[in-house]
Amino acid sequence: MSELRRDPLTNQWVIISEERSGRPQDFMVKRNVRPSHQCPFCEGHEEETPSEVFATRSEDSPDNKPGWQIRVVPNKYPALLPTFDHEDEGTFWLPQPDGIAGDLYGETAGCGIHEVIIESPKHLTRSTDLDAKQLGNVLRMYRNRLQNIRENTHIRSGIAFKNVGPEAGATMEHIHSQLIGLPIVAPQLTAELDAITKYRGKYDRCLLCDLIDAEKKIAQRIITTTDHYIAICPYASRQPYEIWILPHVHQGDFCSVSDDSCDELAHLLRCTLQSIDALLDKPAYNYMILTAPFDTASISHYHWRIVIIPRTTIQAGFEFGTLCCINPIAPERAAHDLRNYQQSVIKTDYDCELVD
Amino acid sequence: MSELRRDPLTNQWVIISEERSGRPQDFMVKRNVRPSHQCPFCEGHEEETPSEVFATRSEDSPDNKPGWQIRVVPNKYPALLPTFDHEDEGTFWLPQPDGIAGDLYGETAGCGIHEVIIESPKHLTRSTDLDAKQLGNVLRMYRNRLQNIRENTHIRSGIAFKNVGPEAGATMEHIHSQLIGLPIVAPQLTAELDAITKYRGKYDRCLLCDLIDAEKKIAQRIITTTDHYIAICPYASRQPYEIWILPHVHQGDFCSVSDDSCDELAHLLRCTLQSIDALLDKPAYNYMILTAPFDTASISHYHWRIVIIPRTTIQAGFEFGTLCCINPIAPERAAHDLRNYQQSVIKTDYDCELVD
Repeated sequence: MSELRRDPLTNQWVIISEERSGRPQDFMVKRNVRPSHQCPFCEGHEEETPSEVFATRSEDSPDNKPGWQIRVVPNKYPALLPTFDHEDEGTFWLPQPDGIAGDLYGETAGCGIHEVIIESPKHLTRSTDLDAKQLGNVLRMYRNRLQNIRENTHIRSGIAFKNVGPEAGATMEHIHSQLIGLPIVAPQLTAELDAITKYRGKYDRCLLCDLIDAEKKIAQRIITTTDHYIAICPYASRQPYEIWILPHVHQGDFCSVSDDSCDELAHLLRCTLQSIDALLDKPAYNYMILTAPFDTASISHYHWRIVIIPRTTIQAGFEFGTLCCINPIAPERAAHDLRNYQQSVIKTDYDCELVD
Repeated sequence: MSELRRDPLTNQWVIISEERSGRPQDFMVKRNVRPSHQCPFCEGHEEETPSEVFATRSEDSPDNKPGWQIRVVPNKYPALLPTFDHEDEGTFWLPQPDGIAGDLYGETAGCGIHEVIIESPKHLTRSTDLDAKQLGNVLRMYRNRLQNIRENTHIRSGIAFKNVGPEAGATMEHIHSQLIGLPIVAPQLTAELDAITKYRGKYDRCLLCDLIDAEKKIAQRIITTTDHYIAICPYASRQPYEIWILPHVHQGDFCSVSDDSCDELAHLLRCTLQSIDALLDKPAYNYMILTAPFDTASISHYHWRIVIIPRTTIQAGFEFGTLCCINPIAPERAAHDLRNYQQSVIKTDYDCELVD
């Protein structure tokens, strides 16, 4: 069983998950991803993964056999286990040794959900290998799986994310994403909700709606806008070419995105990733879908977004010791580069307003 | 000029530092460090670095010439610039565009100090290449430079840190550390001081003194103790084999460490890094000295420590999106491995009490 431990100094959570390491050095960084001819995610190798929990597949094809388009399986090395048989769900404190005044060791049972979403039966490797329609199907799958895990009362928040390339933490090359459901509200989300709630208390407005309006007026960090979405390089970008994609109109929960909107979003996401691929020569990257925690009160306050982080710099001692990032590329310059690329190259079916 | 920008969603600070990137892709991850025959940190190549700000060197040797043991130079690509000619030191808000309710864009002038401490005139690469006496000199240099930068009234906190290996963010192979003085209290330090202050308010005790006492009683995560120091794997270790070294007796400020104590600490640090080198086959790693902010009130509350992080795993999309780490090695197991190694191999001059 994994454990979720709370650091008494920073109140940050850490998942201690020995399920993920077998022999002593199995956890070490591996730069080599598994070659394609041994890929368990390819069509025809279904028995090499845990049994699927969901798949879009042709009607006559049986589970765990070829004939699928997108396949969802439990992670073989889960960070959290779906063992929801215990009673106490909350955080508890381990007993203090004699003579110690305060609570130091906070813990939550490390139960949760960890799924892998295999995005194509073919051995593709990057999101831009999918066409916009296929990427739309992937976004709908994120939405549907998040909807599914929120029905589990033990799960308080969830995140869908993608790691592309070994420098971004990927161990498999075959195009896939992951989804983790947590028994806590993640620290990032807690910090964001704090700021959003304070802002709403003071101004009776959504911080992110105001931020989008401000960015439109400043017009220096916008990359693209479509009917319902906007792509920007955020003011305090932690990494070069960090990108946020958000809905213009306030929407707390990614699960509320309509089928049509997923297609529009897929189109914008694909254009954005194409620009990143071209400008940075197909870098490793991560993207994450940040959506409201699953309690009803949070949903109306939060404003979901996709965060894209090309992995071009390495977190070093300074960043570990201060939690302060050093970004050598101003987001205004990053947005300018990305915008220029899109204006010159990418043809769109949607009515994208390109600023500049 | 660099800028320190505050993220309106998380209140985290980011240093936007275009000084660190020249041509468009200069900032990209480079896996190849500069080969030793072109090393500007080696004795005889002094003119290839900025002029030294301090050095321990033989009395008859002139500045910026051979004859030194440890040499301190400004970083050639500084994250922050020492341009302290502006008046307003604090955080200010950029003007809001019309119609936006609240402050969104917080900024501080990106002034600060960024020094490189070259630890040997020879082309050594790892701390364990130094003997304990030389490492003691390095620790005294950290202390003295931190003491020096705290006299600058524009600087509110400082950190000494080391990056070893490209996976840990090092771009130079030659043995060196860095020191950064910030015009803010770093977010990590702010979070820690919050927890420490709350704990003291409630129990009238230092959280870290209590933590050390608790760890001694539990005796599962201690690696080594010496007369004045203790090395542990922290309860909520973010990374496999993360190690903290702390003084037993409450001490807020690393600048208060005596000369003799630096030797004892160097001995313990060296033993600890030897164990890491042996167990993890000379991994990339970072270490950081976390010490109190420079205002007098904080100094008595804080409890300084050295944090060592071997870089064996990669931060992926989940960690970026949640600020929650996944650690596949329980700290109890890590401490056990490190302790066993030290008991079996390392001979010490100091009276180390090895638990188990």
